[in-house]
Amino acid sequence: MIHPIILCGGSGTRLWPRSRAAAPKPFIPLVGDNTLFQATLARCQNREIFAAPMVVAGQSHLDHVIAQSASLPDIQIIVEPTAKNTAPAIALAACRLPADAIMLVCPSDHYIADQAAFVRAAQAASKLAGDDWLVGFGIEPDRPETGYGYILQGEEIAGGYRIDRYVEKPDQTRAEAFLEEGCYSWNGGIFAFRAGAFLRELALHRPDMANAVQQSVAQGTKDGPIFHPEPQQFGKIDGESVDYAVMENTRHAAMVPAKMGWSDIGNWQALRDARPSDERGNAIFGRGEMIDCTNVMVDSDGPRVSVVGLDDVMVVVDGDEILVVSASGAQKVGTLTGAKSG
Amino acid sequence: MIHPIILCGGSGTRLWPRSRAAAPKPFIPLVGDNTLFQATLARCQNREIFAAPMVVAGQSHLDHVIAQSASLPDIQIIVEPTAKNTAPAIALAACRLPADAIMLVCPSDHYIADQAAFVRAAQAASKLAGDDWLVGFGIEPDRPETGYGYILQGEEIAGGYRIDRYVEKPDQTRAEAFLEEGCYSWNGGIFAFRAGAFLRELALHRPDMANAVQQSVAQGTKDGPIFHPEPQQFGKIDGESVDYAVMENTRHAAMVPAKMGWSDIGNWQALRDARPSDERGNAIFGRGEMIDCTNVMVDSDGPRVSVVGLDDVMVVVDGDEILVVSASGAQKVGTLTGAKSG
Repeated sequence: MIHPIILCGGSGTRLWPRSRAAAPKPFIPLVGDNTLFQATLARCQNREIFAAPMVVAGQSHLDHVIAQSASLPDIQIIVEPTAKNTAPAIALAACRLPADAIMLVCPSDHYIADQAAFVRAAQAASKLAGDDWLVGFGIEPDRPETGYGYILQGEEIAGGYRIDRYVEKPDQTRAEAFLEEGCYSWNGGIFAFRAGAFLRELALHRPDMANAVQQSVAQGTKDGPIFHPEPQQFGKIDGESVDYAVMENTRHAAMVPAKMGWSDIGNWQALRDARPSDERGNAIFGRGEMIDCTNVMVDSDGPRVSVVGLDDVMVVVDGDEILVVSASGAQKVGTLTGAKSG
Repeated sequence: MIHPIILCGGSGTRLWPRSRAAAPKPFIPLVGDNTLFQATLARCQNREIFAAPMVVAGQSHLDHVIAQSASLPDIQIIVEPTAKNTAPAIALAACRLPADAIMLVCPSDHYIADQAAFVRAAQAASKLAGDDWLVGFGIEPDRPETGYGYILQGEEIAGGYRIDRYVEKPDQTRAEAFLEEGCYSWNGGIFAFRAGAFLRELALHRPDMANAVQQSVAQGTKDGPIFHPEPQQFGKIDGESVDYAVMENTRHAAMVPAKMGWSDIGNWQALRDARPSDERGNAIFGRGEMIDCTNVMVDSDGPRVSVVGLDDVMVVVDGDEILVVSASGAQKVGTLTGAKSG
């Protein structure tokens, strides 16, 4: 059995004004009728393959998590006392599982078009994890993306590849070279670990963090399906991503290639690309009209939006906030005053 | 004395959604605090040069005209029974004036930055009109504009030039050639006529129209400062512009060159260009924020508008209508569903 560990972190400010503090990215319907969180749960719903999911979320997300997982009576929830990035969050889950449990760590705010391919990759990764590899999903790139970290594929092993190294977000020239070379894939933020193997590697490379998490779990309290780690121990941790804390340090890093229509829905451009559009690339959600437009997305919760003579632009209306952003500007939405104030 | 004849026609649909049936273009503040109608009146306020203005307006504009001219007790208003374009509207005014009165016909929805230059041109045009020339203002072009009709300047006469001919809106190549050649100017829609001379030329080239207007005025009724021409006679007229009906036919067409910061504010691009902007060409009216923008105008009556990574785009919010339009798309705004339904 594979234990899905669903991480609910991040603020999604680059999807402001639709994603806001009160309604963050995983919990709003962005692609189709389900929220990204609901879709993440649904991907792991086959109980012949997946055990009951375990969700790690902050206190501010808890109501959303409970409301949107009501159909899963066997779900378990761990409430992070404070946000400390992914390594401590995963460690909390690992401490709550038997050492031999295979964890599949999934962000709650990604989109995956091909469910079957996801399950196949999950099974391949879990098999490697059973042999104590720390396994990342390597998403096959289809464009020279500069917004993602990359994984350089190393020597082939049974069912996957060693990871040669992690590469920071490249510039355009390097991203094009990566695509050309073919041995680079995107770091999709999805991982498979044997719980005991993860904690062993964490203890090796981040002993303070491993120790603090273990004490925080040992002193934690349980309230039905909800587990509250002890906050003081957890609060001492220096927050760090699992990539930095573990994957880039361990000698047992492996990857499985995955081609599954993945997107991190990291900004309005990515969201537009994941959504259906007409033959000119245009899409209207809510009320709108377009003349002489290509690759334009309108997403309005009320007012009619009329667009004339634009290419590659997204217009978003949410209450009393209106965003108009070019594809090239999408990465900067999070720096707007409105996005920063939630 | 020069008699200002202020024409309030046109729907301004290309400035939708700010300009609507209930609040049409001349009567909303578009540049500065005054409306274009108020600014048109203010340009002719020097009573040593200008007589009391006479406004020709449709019934639907009457309330706006009265409300926005309350400070002018001597104003006269002619209510067009139906909209018949500019030639009949001007003829109505001409019939209500002594034959020797010099009329200065001014659209109510244009913008003129340089008031002193306007007055100088008006005086020059009126002098020519006193010699029975039918005089148009020829606006000196500063760009190869394809949205305006042009006037080809002919032989010099005292105080101006004969008009060689009128030229329809050109394509880009011809507009560039016109600018290069230097003897073409924009038809600004501003005219000076001796009332009797105008009516004589109208009777010569459009006898039916001249006759119908004269009968309509003869049978009209006066209600204080408001004159109502008889509607049945007026309704029989085939509507036509003064350019087509008179200026292109008369052998007495003349022009005075005018360089006065003129704009017809014909669409959102023209309005943006007439308004102040910062050193990057950006301007925010209402609440807004911009990142990586150039030549962007935001005009919102309520919601905050955040724009990222765009050039040469206008965003307009008016109630529950939002318009996003490129400079090149500005001419097509009037064809939007919202603009057509007012």
